[in-house]
Amino acid sequence: MSEFAVTPQSEDFSKWYNEIVYRAELADQSPVRGCMIIKPYGYELWEGIRDGLDRRFKATGHRNAYFPLFIPESFIKREAEHVEGFAPELAVVTHGGGKELEEPYIVRPTSETVIGEAFSRWIQSYRDLPLLINQWANVVRWELRTRPFLRTSEFLWQEGHTAHATEEDAQTETLMILDVYEDFARNDAAIPVIKGRKSSQERFAGAKDSYTIEAMMGDKRALQSGTSHNLGQNFARAFDITYTDENNQLQHCWTTSWGLSTRMVGAIVMVHGDDKGLRLPPRLAPVQVVLVPIYKNDTEKTPVIQAADHLYKALREAGIRIHLDDRPNLSPGFKYNDWEMRGVPVRIEVGPKDVEKNTVAIARRDIPGKEGKKFIPQEGLVQAVRELLVDIQSSMLRQATEFRDANIHEVVGDYDRFSEILKDGWAQTWFCGGADCEAQIKADNQAVSRCFPLEQPHPGESGPCIKCGQSVHEMALFAKAY
Amino acid sequence: MSEFAVTPQSEDFSKWYNEIVYRAELADQSPVRGCMIIKPYGYELWEGIRDGLDRRFKATGHRNAYFPLFIPESFIKREAEHVEGFAPELAVVTHGGGKELEEPYIVRPTSETVIGEAFSRWIQSYRDLPLLINQWANVVRWELRTRPFLRTSEFLWQEGHTAHATEEDAQTETLMILDVYEDFARNDAAIPVIKGRKSSQERFAGAKDSYTIEAMMGDKRALQSGTSHNLGQNFARAFDITYTDENNQLQHCWTTSWGLSTRMVGAIVMVHGDDKGLRLPPRLAPVQVVLVPIYKNDTEKTPVIQAADHLYKALREAGIRIHLDDRPNLSPGFKYNDWEMRGVPVRIEVGPKDVEKNTVAIARRDIPGKEGKKFIPQEGLVQAVRELLVDIQSSMLRQATEFRDANIHEVVGDYDRFSEILKDGWAQTWFCGGADCEAQIKADNQAVSRCFPLEQPHPGESGPCIKCGQSVHEMALFAKAY
Repeated sequence: MSEFAVTPQSEDFSKWYNEIVYRAELADQSPVRGCMIIKPYGYELWEGIRDGLDRRFKATGHRNAYFPLFIPESFIKREAEHVEGFAPELAVVTHGGGKELEEPYIVRPTSETVIGEAFSRWIQSYRDLPLLINQWANVVRWELRTRPFLRTSEFLWQEGHTAHATEEDAQTETLMILDVYEDFARNDAAIPVIKGRKSSQERFAGAKDSYTIEAMMGDKRALQSGTSHNLGQNFARAFDITYTDENNQLQHCWTTSWGLSTRMVGAIVMVHGDDKGLRLPPRLAPVQVVLVPIYKNDTEKTPVIQAADHLYKALREAGIRIHLDDRPNLSPGFKYNDWEMRGVPVRIEVGPKDVEKNTVAIARRDIPGKEGKKFIPQEGLVQAVRELLVDIQSSMLRQATEFRDANIHEVVGDYDRFSEILKDGWAQTWFCGGADCEAQIKADNQAVSRCFPLEQPHPGESGPCIKCGQSVHEMALFAKAY
Repeated sequence: MSEFAVTPQSEDFSKWYNEIVYRAELADQSPVRGCMIIKPYGYELWEGIRDGLDRRFKATGHRNAYFPLFIPESFIKREAEHVEGFAPELAVVTHGGGKELEEPYIVRPTSETVIGEAFSRWIQSYRDLPLLINQWANVVRWELRTRPFLRTSEFLWQEGHTAHATEEDAQTETLMILDVYEDFARNDAAIPVIKGRKSSQERFAGAKDSYTIEAMMGDKRALQSGTSHNLGQNFARAFDITYTDENNQLQHCWTTSWGLSTRMVGAIVMVHGDDKGLRLPPRLAPVQVVLVPIYKNDTEKTPVIQAADHLYKALREAGIRIHLDDRPNLSPGFKYNDWEMRGVPVRIEVGPKDVEKNTVAIARRDIPGKEGKKFIPQEGLVQAVRELLVDIQSSMLRQATEFRDANIHEVVGDYDRFSEILKDGWAQTWFCGGADCEAQIKADNQAVSRCFPLEQPHPGESGPCIKCGQSVHEMALFAKAY
């Protein structure tokens, strides 16, 4: 089994991650600095993420559109904080069609500005509001240190952009989308994310308030997995996004933006993976079931393959994403390890004895070894597999939730203990949100505030900021992060 | 009705096209030279195209992947014809992250080269073949004269890239994909395209043979709507895409590539549209049915809205894409014109008399005026609408086919007549395929060869090339083209 041995997570989580991403063929390195190739297995995982989100966006009234890849340099500069936030990360097109351009184009790092300009033309009256637009696109942010899916110079994402008549409507939208993200993460990706508000240091360049879903990885680091921004009237002012209200008065709109990227693939890998490789939640797994026929010779082969074909068709027709691994040159043991490494939730084995007894062996990826394997009748297999997939999905969410909860520690007023916790877990503590406190905590602990959870652990109470000691009303989560 | 009046097709087809694209809100102009914004209605049409093709690609064993947006300049230069073909159209990134790049990056005009490099690493043995990959992506080709959907500097497309062990396998793939395109165009877009082989002047830069689906627009110009290229071993040689065969000999692969773009949206507009606006084929129409409630006062309103709501829900639950137009400030007549302009295949009207009689008025977009309108019972409406959508789909295909066939004229040996035909139709004639003949025909007629149809009108026969007179075995189609 040496060909499947990966660096154990406990030894070097980072190395484990890279090995798994490449060996499970989620991604490949590319000759372009900082850019990866998303291989079919990784892309299929992304398609599942995309479809799960897209369905939810459409159900909440959003429509997809597509805006230009290029942004005039002058646009980026119109919102002061925005240009400051993105300036170091921009890729610039200076030549087109054999000529130097009069004004350079920026390859979009995000589309706030070009969409802002369009909104200013599309919105005239209160009847045009709310305007609820989403875009699936590639964006580019020049990165020096990259890691597949987690941080790449080009990545895929969706970016929602909405405009509203009132501050309240914009805030409602911002939080509704955060709910959509949370619902997707929990139900589809089996990741129990925590919804919260970013501190002023950590918020989006140009936003009034940024909200986040934060997930705990297997090494107890945090990963910001999606963000939803209330942009106030900042972009509306910079881009003249106005409407005439019911009293015929000209008003600036209130806008939001929100995004979730291919980073979510990295989250799934790091939340669920183990030393054997990936473990994919059934709702997103490109292959939910792998079927492995087992035989020693041609006499055994014929009936086994026949039975396997029959089961394959039955499961496929039932809408289960199944793969029949009939590679002739590989042993069953090799195949088991291979598909375990690739994180397929369910494995079905059919051998000569199974043909005789009308049974199959069925093994679940989330429970290792014999405990997770049993023999069941071929009759009723479709229903049994369906139930098993549902059970694995909820078992994975339960495991991730237990792990998360066991590694969040509350601390009040004891900075040494706070620092100790941050070495190997998340700290939940009273926090003033001040820039100085945040900077000092970061310098001391290489950890930052992840968010002020929307669901506060002690609502209505107050306590001392972990750094400056002043009495505050909110607790924040701190962690080392990707 | 003046607000809906568009320039008639007969007066200025080109102007009609632009007006319809913007007024039906398929696209909008953007501040970026040569790039358009695809608005939600246009993007939904593209989503239908994408889904229809994606399903077919997957059913024929292809898998999606994603490759970098940027291509090292040196890659583009590796295949001689390729660089020559694309050089004038390239957009170049010279700066990233605040610094000048050592080697400039090209924004992909197509991904042959970067995918070729990946294939060279992914393919080792005959067991790795065929490798069947597709990518949905944006590409950039700097264009001086642009038109929405038809020719834009950035466009969306899919590009398939496959590698095979033999020349025959590559050719089979090339033609199989052409069949997929034709099947999609005919059955989903109701466009009766003609499959054919490009002349050597018109083929893709670096291909051995290029195949095309050609569609006739409403002004009788041709639009190349999708292409499939047999690349021979050109890219395999340039990028060292090799495999070890069953005899342990190193061989170059045979590769193909094929693409279909947002141009197809333009094809749908120009094939089916009329002086009232768009006409969308039901299978791709973002809105298949619009429901318009009609009432004069509040007494009438309540029961009418109730009935409309009820019908809306029934049709929506049946999976029909329906929109209820309950805008209070607009007259029914305005709404009829508006939705006709937007090409919605079916309109249902519900008024007080309909409520009384349990009927609705139902009007089809493909048959104008009273002839296309009738009153039918509310009971059984779902089934009636389903059947009507199927009927409209085939009626649109029939109309487009009749129009196409009426405007293709065969001509043998009579160059004057050939030129006359090309003023207002397609000419089908014997053609040697030579560069000189092609160039002269183009200079004389502003028309080029569209393809040698795969289904030849006179198989086994021969005749004189329309230009040079030498005896040849194939007929070609000539037309003015977009």
